[in-house]
Amino acid sequence: MRIAQVAPLAESVPPLLYGGTERVVAYLCDELVRMGHDVTLFASGDSETRAKLHAEWPTALRLGGHVEDPVAPHLLMLEHVMQQAEQFDMIHFHVAEIHFPLARRLPVPHVTTLHGRLDIPELAPLYREFSDVPVVSISTSQRTPLPHAGWAATVYHGLPADLLSFHPAPGRYLAFVGRISPEKRVDRAIAIARACRQPLRIAAKVDPADAAYFEREIRSLLDDPLIEYVGEIGEQDKDEFLGNASALLFPIDWPEPFGLVMIEALACGVPVVALRRGAVPEVIEHGASGFVVDTVDEAIEVTRRVAQLDRRQCRAAFERRFTARRMAEDYLRLYRKLIAHHPEPEQSEVAGAS
Amino acid sequence: MRIAQVAPLAESVPPLLYGGTERVVAYLCDELVRMGHDVTLFASGDSETRAKLHAEWPTALRLGGHVEDPVAPHLLMLEHVMQQAEQFDMIHFHVAEIHFPLARRLPVPHVTTLHGRLDIPELAPLYREFSDVPVVSISTSQRTPLPHAGWAATVYHGLPADLLSFHPAPGRYLAFVGRISPEKRVDRAIAIARACRQPLRIAAKVDPADAAYFEREIRSLLDDPLIEYVGEIGEQDKDEFLGNASALLFPIDWPEPFGLVMIEALACGVPVVALRRGAVPEVIEHGASGFVVDTVDEAIEVTRRVAQLDRRQCRAAFERRFTARRMAEDYLRLYRKLIAHHPEPEQSEVAGAS
Repeated sequence: MRIAQVAPLAESVPPLLYGGTERVVAYLCDELVRMGHDVTLFASGDSETRAKLHAEWPTALRLGGHVEDPVAPHLLMLEHVMQQAEQFDMIHFHVAEIHFPLARRLPVPHVTTLHGRLDIPELAPLYREFSDVPVVSISTSQRTPLPHAGWAATVYHGLPADLLSFHPAPGRYLAFVGRISPEKRVDRAIAIARACRQPLRIAAKVDPADAAYFEREIRSLLDDPLIEYVGEIGEQDKDEFLGNASALLFPIDWPEPFGLVMIEALACGVPVVALRRGAVPEVIEHGASGFVVDTVDEAIEVTRRVAQLDRRQCRAAFERRFTARRMAEDYLRLYRKLIAHHPEPEQSEVAGAS
Repeated sequence: MRIAQVAPLAESVPPLLYGGTERVVAYLCDELVRMGHDVTLFASGDSETRAKLHAEWPTALRLGGHVEDPVAPHLLMLEHVMQQAEQFDMIHFHVAEIHFPLARRLPVPHVTTLHGRLDIPELAPLYREFSDVPVVSISTSQRTPLPHAGWAATVYHGLPADLLSFHPAPGRYLAFVGRISPEKRVDRAIAIARACRQPLRIAAKVDPADAAYFEREIRSLLDDPLIEYVGEIGEQDKDEFLGNASALLFPIDWPEPFGLVMIEALACGVPVVALRRGAVPEVIEHGASGFVVDTVDEAIEVTRRVAQLDRRQCRAAFERRFTARRMAEDYLRLYRKLIAHHPEPEQSEVAGAS
């Protein structure tokens, strides 16, 4: 199948730093190529992919110095996609909704994966208008604020099966990975670790927007021999950091649309203790690959007995549900369905302009 | 003629507060209606216009509380414009470039007025790609960074002839109107006034982004009996504030694409002393409606003899070159030219989608 993948330009594919969307696009492209498909990736020029790369901007916008108008490069990319549209059997967008008025007029089957949170008031009337534009949620929970959107499927994210390795040993500490932000609730992770008298290692960055929160709410909590703040870690450090943990603590306080770090932990064989918000109960099977609880007190209770869970079951859950191969197969099934149901191009539809 | 005007949603048309684009769109709409045309305005719902208002968002985005995604309401508006496109003879956009990929596929004649500065690096490749999309500059100077854009005309802004009144008396002070920002150089205005030993009245707002600059560079300069800082003034105060001035000082240090306050001064019969940047030499006729100089020293020299200029000539320059009627006539001439040269819709062009 001739497939176009259209990525955001904020980060390269895959990203040098943080960027969940671009990481997933990278895994999807590479897996589709491995499966024999003809994949073209529209992305920033510093991307690295097994697909054919169409370099739409020299470098990722977040890294290439100050960019005053991040919309302009995306408009240029969308125009290029429109001009080449008829070369593809399927066009798969990952750029939120900026292409919706164009996509509606595409003569080629297309689909859009929504990677972010959708509980933003401005989005509701937009998705109601564009309810015929097929969109993919990354969890069922993510759909909640937009019941009128053109939901075509839910496709959970996946990681390459060999990206992270299974660590059978029981683990020596609790782990927290993420940004230090009010939504991620590292303060709850600290409270859980202290109540259980277990060491906690925190791998987290502090964005400038969260610096005041860090100073006001978090810094004093780190002054405890049980708590170790290791700062930001790179992708290459995750295997060791997660794999040597007894559990990942994920005590979030926001409607997390997916939560990649949960499946990274499972890939290492590490169970997840998480609060029931957003996609958590869809990703973690309570009592098998971790515990899904409603309060911090319950989290403390289950963390004390998390070693009872079989780490092989965690890895097995990853292999069954969260590999890049499974993700690519889900998307291919959806592509075929959308192609089969796509109307013949009418006179009133258009790709390249005169 | 059936004309659509598509305004930004940041401010209402006209704006309650600062918003040059929305003010000009308001004047243009009302003047076209006065001339007998059938005008439809796509804008925020709190706009007030003689045109038919299509309320595209309940209130101006800058005033209606925090808006997380200002692009979404604009996408929805563009979709509505596309669906109704065939009801118009001409669609006139004022929303920068977000509609370019759509406009290229419009079967209806259209034009876009660019209201902002264009020396942003991200814009050059975009305007090169879309060089067939007709755009209007608000000064010849504004075009400089984008020689490859699809320039169709330059149309200077205009004000309703009766918006501001002619003040024949010679004036009692120098005036400065604008934001307190490094580009506007109120410090130079103060230096000119002090060197001339003439009083200066400053009507200016301090945006949060410029608060540190104001404290660091400007506040101490205000401590002089010649200098009076009157704060922000509303539209209704401009007639008196500008009309009683001996001259408007406009010592800018940036490529100002037009400079509405210059023609407001002229409408009051007040000459302008300005530095030669951006549109200044196109708006001010040196030795007639003001002085256009290259240095602060020259500005001091000409300010001393600005009373020699005939205030009636300033008002006459306004009436000849900068009324809303002249602006509307320029646009109508351009609309007719674009309609005459517009290709018949082909099969590969489209308005409403299926």
